[in-house]
Amino acid sequence: MTNPVIAEITRGGIVESRHRGAFAVLDATGHVVSAEGAIAAAVYPRSAVKAFQCLPVVESGAADRFGFTDEEIALCCASHNGEPDHLRVARSMLAKAGNAESSYECGAHWPYHEASRVALIRAGGDPAQLHNNCSGKHAGMLALARQLGADPHGYVNPDHPVQRQIATTMGALCDVDLDAQPCGTDGCSVPTWAMPLRNLALGFARFANPDFAAARRIIAAVRAHPFMVAGSGDFDTLIMQAVPRVFVKTGAEGVYCACIPHAGLGIALKCDDGAARAAEVAIASVLAGLDVWTAEEKSTLDGFRHHPLLNWRRREVGEVRGWRL
Amino acid sequence: MTNPVIAEITRGGIVESRHRGAFAVLDATGHVVSAEGAIAAAVYPRSAVKAFQCLPVVESGAADRFGFTDEEIALCCASHNGEPDHLRVARSMLAKAGNAESSYECGAHWPYHEASRVALIRAGGDPAQLHNNCSGKHAGMLALARQLGADPHGYVNPDHPVQRQIATTMGALCDVDLDAQPCGTDGCSVPTWAMPLRNLALGFARFANPDFAAARRIIAAVRAHPFMVAGSGDFDTLIMQAVPRVFVKTGAEGVYCACIPHAGLGIALKCDDGAARAAEVAIASVLAGLDVWTAEEKSTLDGFRHHPLLNWRRREVGEVRGWRL
Repeated sequence: MTNPVIAEITRGGIVESRHRGAFAVLDATGHVVSAEGAIAAAVYPRSAVKAFQCLPVVESGAADRFGFTDEEIALCCASHNGEPDHLRVARSMLAKAGNAESSYECGAHWPYHEASRVALIRAGGDPAQLHNNCSGKHAGMLALARQLGADPHGYVNPDHPVQRQIATTMGALCDVDLDAQPCGTDGCSVPTWAMPLRNLALGFARFANPDFAAARRIIAAVRAHPFMVAGSGDFDTLIMQAVPRVFVKTGAEGVYCACIPHAGLGIALKCDDGAARAAEVAIASVLAGLDVWTAEEKSTLDGFRHHPLLNWRRREVGEVRGWRL
Repeated sequence: MTNPVIAEITRGGIVESRHRGAFAVLDATGHVVSAEGAIAAAVYPRSAVKAFQCLPVVESGAADRFGFTDEEIALCCASHNGEPDHLRVARSMLAKAGNAESSYECGAHWPYHEASRVALIRAGGDPAQLHNNCSGKHAGMLALARQLGADPHGYVNPDHPVQRQIATTMGALCDVDLDAQPCGTDGCSVPTWAMPLRNLALGFARFANPDFAAARRIIAAVRAHPFMVAGSGDFDTLIMQAVPRVFVKTGAEGVYCACIPHAGLGIALKCDDGAARAAEVAIASVLAGLDVWTAEEKSTLDGFRHHPLLNWRRREVGEVRGWRL
C-alpha cells in the first residue's frame, strides 16, 4: 500500500516536492473516525509521546513530592528550543528532585533557537545537556528514578525501572504489548517503541478522557504554558496558543500526535519520509478537517495548513501546504 | 505513477522512514542506460546545474579575461560551506572582475560549516552574502555581466542578459526550450527552470563529452579542487576526492546530478520529498550500480551508499541507506 500525498511544496507555480504519509483519528472506544494510508503499520512515536512518558512522573507521586509546577510539567512534555526560560525551568526541576545536570544522559546539542544559540556562542559557551530539547523530559525521568528509589545511572536504558514504568503505562494506554514491539533508541538515548499508528491515536483518545486525572493535569499544564513545550515561533507553541482546545506534539521523523479533549478524539500522523515541514501542515489539515470546532477555531487551524516558502532574501518563492489544499 | 523507494532510514532493526524518487542515466545520444520512476516529469534542477550556469562564464571569455584559476572555476560550481578558503576564493573572484560584495544579490546566511559559523559568531560577525553557499556562482555571474557589458544590477532576474545567456546555453545542452518551462526562483534569487529528469541527465551526458572544451575545463577544475564545490565532510567533496573519475553536484530539494566522462554518461536524480540525506545515498547507489568502474572504485562507491545514524551521544541507532541495499 502506498500512502497518499499529505503535503506539497510549490515553486514557480508547480509542485516541486511531495510528502506521503498516513494518519488516524480515533475515539476512546477504538472507532476510526477518519484515516488515510497504512494505519496498521508500526511507527516509532519518538518525542510525540512525551506526554505519555510524563504520566508516571505524575501518577507515581513524583510531581507532587517534588512540587513540580504546571510550567515544569509542561517542560517535561517538551521538545524545547533551549531558550533561557526553558533552561530555567529544567534547572529548577533538577534542583527540586535533588539531581545534577551531570546526571543527564540525553547528550548535548546547541539550542535550536537561533538567537539563544548565537547568544550562547557569543558568551563563549558550549553545547550542554541542559540545552538538549529533551532536557525537561529527562529531568522528569530523573525525578521518577528518585521516586522509585532506583539508581538514576542508566535511566535511559530499556530495562531501567524508569523505562519499565513508562513502557507499562504507555503499552496499557495504547493497548499494545511494547515488549513484543521493535524498540529503537531515540536521539536523546531513551527507548522508543514502535506501534501501529492507530494504537498511537487510540492512546491519545484515551489520554483525552476528562476522568483520567493525571492526563487532565498534564493537558492543563501544557495549555497554561504552550511556550514551554516548544518555544518562540515553533509550530506546537503557536497552534496551541491560537487554538487552546487542541493538544499537539511533534516527534522526530515526521510524527505528529494530537488530542482534542472536548471531542474525545486522538490523532496520530506519520510522514513517510520523516519531514517535519510536511507533518506540521498535514496535522493542521487533519485537525481543520474535523467537525469539532467553532468557526473561529476552524479558520485559525486553516491558517496553519500552509505557509509561504521564503528564499535567503526573504522573498516568497513558493508554498508549503497540507493535505487537500 | 508512484516512484520507487530510493532510500531508507532504519532504527531498532526496522525501517523508520522511506524516501521515494526517480533517476535517469543517459548517454549523449539520448539512450536511456538505466532508469527508475517518472523520468519524464519536470523537476527544478536547483544548484545541481551550477556547472551549466558556469559554462557561459568560460565560453564568453570572462574566465580568461579575469584570469580565473581552477580553484575559482570550481567555486563557481559550488554550494560551499562558507569555510575561510571558500570566502578567500569568492573575494578573489569579485576583485578580479572589479565587483564589490555589495553587488551580490544572493542574500545572506550563516556559513553552513559549523566550526566556521561558530568562529564567525565568536568574532562578533554577522551572516553576509559572501557566506551564501552560492557566492562563487554569483561572483561568476557578476563577472559574466561585466563581460557582456551589462549593468550588473538585477543580474538575478530571468530577463537579465546574464540569465538569458544561461538559459540559452542550458536549454541547448539539455534539449529543452526553457522559456516554455515553469520558472521558479531559487534560494539565492536566480531563476531555476524546470525540465524533465531525462533531459537533465542528457545535458550531463553531453557535458561529459571530452570534445566540449568549456565543459572539460570546468570538470578538470572541480576534479583538481573538490573541496571548493562543497567543503569539509560534505558528500560532494568526499565522493569526488575518493573517486576522481566521477563528477557530482547536489541541488536543493533532493536533486543530484552527475556525469562520468570516461563512460560518456549523465545522471539526474530527484528525491520526491526533497531530502538531501536520501538523494546522497541514492546517487551513490545509482553510481555504484553502473558497470563502468574498477573494482576499487566500485567498492569505494558502495561505501557511500549507507552510513550510520547517530544520536546526540554519538551512538549508532540506525542507518541511512540507498536504493537496493
